[in-house]
Amino acid sequence: MLQELKEKVFHANLELVKQGLVIYTWGNVSGIDREKGLIAIKPSGLDYDKMTADDMVVVDLEGNIVEGKLRPSSDTPTHLALYRAFPAIGGVVHTHSTYATAWSQAGLDIPNIGTTHADYFHKDIPCTADMTAEEVRGDYELETGNVIVRRFADIDPTATPAVLVKNHGPFTWGKDPADAVHNAVVLEQVAKMAFIARTINPALTMNPLLIEKHYNRKHGPGAYYGQGKQD
Amino acid sequence: MLQELKEKVFHANLELVKQGLVIYTWGNVSGIDREKGLIAIKPSGLDYDKMTADDMVVVDLEGNIVEGKLRPSSDTPTHLALYRAFPAIGGVVHTHSTYATAWSQAGLDIPNIGTTHADYFHKDIPCTADMTAEEVRGDYELETGNVIVRRFADIDPTATPAVLVKNHGPFTWGKDPADAVHNAVVLEQVAKMAFIARTINPALTMNPLLIEKHYNRKHGPGAYYGQGKQD
Amino acid sequence: MLQELKEKVFHANLELVKQGLVIYTWGNVSGIDREKGLIAIKPSGLDYDKMTADDMVVVDLEGNIVEGKLRPSSDTPTHLALYRAFPAIGGVVHTHSTYATAWSQAGLDIPNIGTTHADYFHKDIPCTADMTAEEVRGDYELETGNVIVRRFADIDPTATPAVLVKNHGPFTWGKDPADAVHNAVVLEQVAKMAFIARTINPALTMNPLLIEKHYNRKHGPGAYYGQGKQD
Amino acid sequence: MLQELKEKVFHANLELVKQGLVIYTWGNVSGIDREKGLIAIKPSGLDYDKMTADDMVVVDLEGNIVEGKLRPSSDTPTHLALYRAFPAIGGVVHTHSTYATAWSQAGLDIPNIGTTHADYFHKDIPCTADMTAEEVRGDYELETGNVIVRRFADIDPTATPAVLVKNHGPFTWGKDPADAVHNAVVLEQVAKMAFIARTINPALTMNPLLIEKHYNRKHGPGAYYGQGKQD
Repeated sequence: MLQELKEKVFHANLELVKQGLVIYTWGNVSGIDREKGLIAIKPSGLDYDKMTADDMVVVDLEGNIVEGKLRPSSDTPTHLALYRAFPAIGGVVHTHSTYATAWSQAGLDIPNIGTTHADYFHKDIPCTADMTAEEVRGDYELETGNVIVRRFADIDPTATPAVLVKNHGPFTWGKDPADAVHNAVVLEQVAKMAFIARTINPALTMNPLLIEKHYNRKHGPGAYYGQGKQD
Repeated sequence: MLQELKEKVFHANLELVKQGLVIYTWGNVSGIDREKGLIAIKPSGLDYDKMTADDMVVVDLEGNIVEGKLRPSSDTPTHLALYRAFPAIGGVVHTHSTYATAWSQAGLDIPNIGTTHADYFHKDIPCTADMTAEEVRGDYELETGNVIVRRFADIDPTATPAVLVKNHGPFTWGKDPADAVHNAVVLEQVAKMAFIARTINPALTMNPLLIEKHYNRKHGPGAYYGQGKQD
Repeated sequence: MLQELKEKVFHANLELVKQGLVIYTWGNVSGIDREKGLIAIKPSGLDYDKMTADDMVVVDLEGNIVEGKLRPSSDTPTHLALYRAFPAIGGVVHTHSTYATAWSQAGLDIPNIGTTHADYFHKDIPCTADMTAEEVRGDYELETGNVIVRRFADIDPTATPAVLVKNHGPFTWGKDPADAVHNAVVLEQVAKMAFIARTINPALTMNPLLIEKHYNRKHGPGAYYGQGKQD
Repeated sequence: MLQELKEKVFHANLELVKQGLVIYTWGNVSGIDREKGLIAIKPSGLDYDKMTADDMVVVDLEGNIVEGKLRPSSDTPTHLALYRAFPAIGGVVHTHSTYATAWSQAGLDIPNIGTTHADYFHKDIPCTADMTAEEVRGDYELETGNVIVRRFADIDPTATPAVLVKNHGPFTWGKDPADAVHNAVVLEQVAKMAFIARTINPALTMNPLLIEKHYNRKHGPGAYYGQGKQD
């Protein structure tokens, strides 16, 4: 069942390790089959080097386990909240990658100050609000998803496929699991460059003209840029 | 004698190198057999690539050599002080890992500003007080242990398995040697992220609600998080 | 046609990856045959590990495709502007390498504060002006080249073979593609050291005597330094 | 002639690359045979991967070439000045390693703020004065050596085997070429940790008691520390 999706999710999880975004069992990737309304996600607490595609857990959009002998990642309710709220996305990634997590801990949006940022994320990468006592004591992982969704009330999640959960870490998404991992890698690079640039010059400015230009030459109607890639 | 413990301590010492926490012969790991009251520890000044499990030195809780042809690590009295004061721990690690040592040199506790920190260390990671002339001129390595133990007068060493010795470097511990190394790796990552986050935003704040939530979902009575791992 | 140049450009593009200056398909290298007036350049959006020398695209100085089945890099008009304005150069490189891009985002010239900088770049590495609405909405990649060329109105591009395009990233050049990549590697190292040095001491000063000395012992009439290399 | 010394110098030069302290042909190591008064040193501008032990150049203490087909490193006069002034040293290293060079560019001594620093370097690592016009225009590489020697007028070069040449980079030395490289590796680590510590806490303080204790337990009359190593 969903063998192809499970393979994709499995390989996207391994790619997180290969790209240096996670240590130990940290981080998780999921992917969705929109027609069937089913999600494949990494199991909880399993070492990456012992994992196989068959260990991926299949759940429905309400979190019921449909297939799999292991528990799904404890972050599953957050992934599901994103799939329910953002119908265009096909894959979700959560990491504790160093620089993106540090911005989450700093509690600040990552400012859009470069063309690479504009190419991939269009606007500042938003940091969520503090969670309330009710949210933390309630269904915490679900509420983490709700806090993200509320932060995107006036942001297009397709144009800005990343968020920082305050004091926690980043989530990214994309059209499929591999694309979500790609965005996680670029997010970490963007977060690192923004850290260095702000330390050099706290008063830096971005030319707003570049933001629209770079975003549109890659994603706009007359896109002419690297078949959706950067070169 | 204690062959299994010596193997575990040996492999935990090699893991320090593999994880990039030590260069040359820096760093050391020990483990204890609580029933026998004996500790296996890395020998002093031996290159990691020439070391075998049989080179591990066995000492009792007072530091008497029970087995081994080489001298035990010069930090042995510090390890023993921790085993005597913290009866629940089974392994101790000392490194000069880059970011954790820099915080030791800065003389500041590492503030708990993220959920990963809360998952593993519950509270701020404490930095010890300056050692006095008597302590430095006396039995220095033993007094280093005593300074650590005094700093934990009102801290639970099981919940916060790490310390920064001021102007020196970190010690971590755990339920066994491998767990103590795991905590040393996470400490270094937490120290790096806290450095970046504070440089970005010196006025950052942590949501205290997250601290209890994250610590308890992993270690509390109703723990539901990754079989003690993070995912 | 131009088989040797295409091989050189191909290998210079792979060297960018090997040196850690690019991720994914980011970055591009070109080289020129001045006699024929033809340029070989990396194709757009092709993965580095699938690329062969035959994939390099050959264009003339006005950008007409002379040979090749793929589209040339979208940055081709910038490369061509540099070849037209700087007749002594034989290769051009564009990367988003971490520290050089961060200086571009900070919008500041990289100050010449060390002998390595003086050896390779003679003076501060200039950052371009903000692009105007006309430039961004017009032939953007060509105008990026024009902005660079204007910035070099009173700078010798042979002595200072690097530029930062504001909010974008660096371009470097050299006597051939390999030399341009060499300069890109050194630029990234110089950018990293300048970041660290300025963070340590914002009030740092350079001894201007060293600038002429180091530049001239390598490039001047009586050059005696490592056959053009540094040792 | 001096085959064993040439092998040692050759391997010490390769170790610089392996430890990540140099890129391209940057950096050089030499060693001295005090009885014969002859020095073996890396040739100028030769790629590390093409170098053999036989390429090492042998010079006397006045810089006359005694053996070798290639030119000695252009930094040879600096090495010779150090061998003449510091009779106890047997090897010299020059690198442009990232953090140590950044401190040189910052123009500041690296403060002794940790026990590792104290173990290896005893006191602050001194940065030289600005060179004068006469020195720069004269026999520049010799004068670089003289500036270092003057800086050590009241510093023991055996206890503090490292210096930062202002706006240039570090030199280290030791009892033989391998020991000088070991000190170059530790210097880079110490420079990195001091950068991080100072950024975290510009007002940091060192306990002076630790300096003597750590230096003496390793180098003093009753040294008991790791057979001269750190563990």
